[in-house]
Amino acid sequence: MPDVELTVVGRVESPLDDPAAAPRQADEGAPPAWLVFDGRYADALGDLRPGAEILVLTWLHRADRGVLRVRPRDDPARPLTGVFSTRSPDRPNPIGLHRVTVLAVDGCRVRVDGLEAVDGTPVLDVKPVLGPSGER
Amino acid sequence: MPDVELTVVGRVESPLDDPAAAPRQADEGAPPAWLVFDGRYADALGDLRPGAEILVLTWLHRADRGVLRVRPRDDPARPLTGVFSTRSPDRPNPIGLHRVTVLAVDGCRVRVDGLEAVDGTPVLDVKPVLGPSGER
Repeated sequence: MPDVELTVVGRVESPLDDPAAAPRQADEGAPPAWLVFDGRYADALGDLRPGAEILVLTWLHRADRGVLRVRPRDDPARPLTGVFSTRSPDRPNPIGLHRVTVLAVDGCRVRVDGLEAVDGTPVLDVKPVLGPSGER
Repeated sequence: MPDVELTVVGRVESPLDDPAAAPRQADEGAPPAWLVFDGRYADALGDLRPGAEILVLTWLHRADRGVLRVRPRDDPARPLTGVFSTRSPDRPNPIGLHRVTVLAVDGCRVRVDGLEAVDGTPVLDVKPVLGPSGER
């Protein structure tokens, strides 16, 4: 099957630097961070406002893409588990999925609460969290 | 910024063929579908079971990646909106995000309920829906 190429639209700016020390999920103590977008995408992010609940898709660039089974949460007591049944960053396509709230927007810089991705992580996409079907 | 390359791990097999006729969201009448994985990823999907709630990430290969603003739901009455505030498939990285339930698993074929992606859509990743933090 042919491969497809992603465009990096921005980067995470965060005090988190060490993947081993980073929280595993945003609700496990992740700090606020900036999403810094390339100016070419200003029109795409022009309607983001403080308070918006969004999904941020990132490329977990330090992950091992050859891993197909892991012990969840690196717990040696757990059995080896297929990565499609885990949230391990190590997987064929290490796309990170982060539900966050926008705190501030300053040009092409977007401040968000709790993000567990390390500094420099590429940003791929931003999507709104969908409300009930009547509000779309 | 350098670009990164995705690996296609499988394809959608669905009666949906025409993107214009496909539902916009899974809860708007999408039919069940098969996810057909390349045999190289058997270990990654080995722990998927019927009843599992999963997120399927796809590559919306018919999307227009140059679009930065759209009228939501193609409604001419709505103002042009940055794509990062919409679920438009047309966006710099057209990654589809689908929350579905596994109905059956047959080797490298996984049957899921309501998927709004058309037949042949590349599959990138599968992640479990996260339960409360105590159950991880």
